[in-house]
Amino acid sequence: MKPATSAPFLRACRREATEYTPVWLMRQAGRYMAEYRALRQRSGFLELCKNPEAAAEVTLLPVERLGVDAAIIFADILLPVEPMGVGLEFAAGEGPIIRRPVRGAADVKRLPDVDPREAAPFVFEAIRKVRKALSERVPLIGFAGAPFTVASYLIEGGASREYLETKRLMHNDPGAWHALLERLVKVTVGYVNGQIAAGAQAVQLFDSWVGALSPADYREFVLPHTRATIKGLTAGVPVIHFSTGTAGLLELVREAGGDVIGLDWRVDLADAWKRVGYDVAVQGNLDPALLLAKPAQIKRHVQAILDRAAGRPGHIFNLGHGVLPETPVEHVIALVDMVHELSSLGGGLRPPSDSSPPGLRGKSPRSNDAR
Amino acid sequence: MKPATSAPFLRACRREATEYTPVWLMRQAGRYMAEYRALRQRSGFLELCKNPEAAAEVTLLPVERLGVDAAIIFADILLPVEPMGVGLEFAAGEGPIIRRPVRGAADVKRLPDVDPREAAPFVFEAIRKVRKALSERVPLIGFAGAPFTVASYLIEGGASREYLETKRLMHNDPGAWHALLERLVKVTVGYVNGQIAAGAQAVQLFDSWVGALSPADYREFVLPHTRATIKGLTAGVPVIHFSTGTAGLLELVREAGGDVIGLDWRVDLADAWKRVGYDVAVQGNLDPALLLAKPAQIKRHVQAILDRAAGRPGHIFNLGHGVLPETPVEHVIALVDMVHELSSLGGGLRPPSDSSPPGLRGKSPRSNDAR
Repeated sequence: MKPATSAPFLRACRREATEYTPVWLMRQAGRYMAEYRALRQRSGFLELCKNPEAAAEVTLLPVERLGVDAAIIFADILLPVEPMGVGLEFAAGEGPIIRRPVRGAADVKRLPDVDPREAAPFVFEAIRKVRKALSERVPLIGFAGAPFTVASYLIEGGASREYLETKRLMHNDPGAWHALLERLVKVTVGYVNGQIAAGAQAVQLFDSWVGALSPADYREFVLPHTRATIKGLTAGVPVIHFSTGTAGLLELVREAGGDVIGLDWRVDLADAWKRVGYDVAVQGNLDPALLLAKPAQIKRHVQAILDRAAGRPGHIFNLGHGVLPETPVEHVIALVDMVHELSSLGGGLRPPSDSSPPGLRGKSPRSNDAR
Repeated sequence: MKPATSAPFLRACRREATEYTPVWLMRQAGRYMAEYRALRQRSGFLELCKNPEAAAEVTLLPVERLGVDAAIIFADILLPVEPMGVGLEFAAGEGPIIRRPVRGAADVKRLPDVDPREAAPFVFEAIRKVRKALSERVPLIGFAGAPFTVASYLIEGGASREYLETKRLMHNDPGAWHALLERLVKVTVGYVNGQIAAGAQAVQLFDSWVGALSPADYREFVLPHTRATIKGLTAGVPVIHFSTGTAGLLELVREAGGDVIGLDWRVDLADAWKRVGYDVAVQGNLDPALLLAKPAQIKRHVQAILDRAAGRPGHIFNLGHGVLPETPVEHVIALVDMVHELSSLGGGLRPPSDSSPPGLRGKSPRSNDAR
């Protein structure tokens, strides 16, 4: 058993050479998986998140089934703001709903102070359980929403397409906007550092919807808060800064911070890495919709992405966003194997037997684990 | 009265100097406008499109109310494919619905051949009426959907968020995909050239949803068809190539063609212009959501965009996408005036009295027209 710091995923976060390109997938534990759907039939989404035993079980599923190089704790980006009393609910098939949205300065002032370390203790407990179960098999990633993306849910009252209320608050009451984001920075820093203290070995900050903004607005209304968040995190733990639809914002996203910059599929990986600089690692960037295509097509696109990374240390393979519910599970398994196989051969290095990728092993982690 | 070719909008399309930055707005005739809503109460959307008298009236509304520098014919990108028998409908508040979506090779083969010039004769008739009513006041823009965006509606059966069926066909049956797009190229070329013959003085190709694709997929599955479309258009008429969410695709969009490249708000105008090259004009790029903010905020952002254009000939001011239905009409009027005013002063040129922007005139086109 290798010490955690030498795991390919963590080495890639530090831009150290690895024998193969590590891979994990956003929403690798999710609705596309029968085991997950079975668990969800027995309990609601929030209920599942708040049950450390069950959350740990879900977290471990893809490690066993897929042979991915990292686990990510099963949770939701809105958990730490639930104690703010905004009326968080998860309606079936609808995503999160905020019953009492934050629309102005008075609403921001009314938000109670939440001790971030006590906001979601069940997440920390789940992290401890997963770390124990994983031992040093693969590293565990913690995560949180970035201030903009969490704010957008609080303001819109749920998912949005145009972010009109968010932008209205930002432009018409910048004081209230910045006050809200400062509150969220504080909660997020405490919440993520709590995850790190509990055992998270890397953390991902999800700014999933910030691609709705112009570069000028990102710079003025978001960048300072994301930067403050990242600066507040416990040193020495790699931070993945993830966003989508940000092909026009990448330099600014990078300026806000992070050791690894997440890339969605709407940008060329080689161009994007050049733009953000080779002194950060990158993660991505297969179109999640490609997992619905035939394996030969998936393989062609995986190879193209590996070619664009050109064997440069510091590439973590992932989708550009989460696994879609419509995805056949066998395509996801095939993808993980393809990444391991094509990156081992392509790199010109035949992996030594004790460090070969899981997918190439006779007994892979997904088959030799009897849980 | 000036000849049409010297109109600021057409001069800017050709990257010739203008006394002020010309401005028009996508969906400048639309639901945000009381006059339009009144017309829509009396007839359905398709009915309105198919009535040349009414379509001409709607087209002229914003010229009179806003003082914009160009009119755009009131129509829909799906009109030319309606005769293909796919069951096009516009349900109230839902956007287009295609009752018989195209999902495979057999569906593509089954599509009847449509004479593009006969597909939507009412559009050509409306164009002739508008040209007559406008005389040479402002130029008239014709438009069509680009092959990808039209195909996405045909395949998905309507609007989409993920474009899963579109991507599935593209990846799993590239033969059917290319056959479908070739059909659409043919229809689109004929349809747009029909608009030009009827009097359209510039044309915009809307590839509104192509930003859903990776650069590699755009290059393989879209670029050749968009290029073939643009190459097929009547020479001498400026082509605006518009798309959204394509900050990672701009070089390829430009490679596909067009005299003017449309930019949405998620890219910095100066960076984008540099990327597509100064041998094309650009159009954009204010966030439509900003029109819901206070005028002072709108003005600040208009100034920032004009600053990014740096007075370089060939900038047409527009939103990054269509005017949102929630937009106050007085903000739209103010926007047009701001663009004219700030670009006249900012450029260092005091416009001579016979070429001053409409918004600065004592009697602007919107007040001196008695229709």
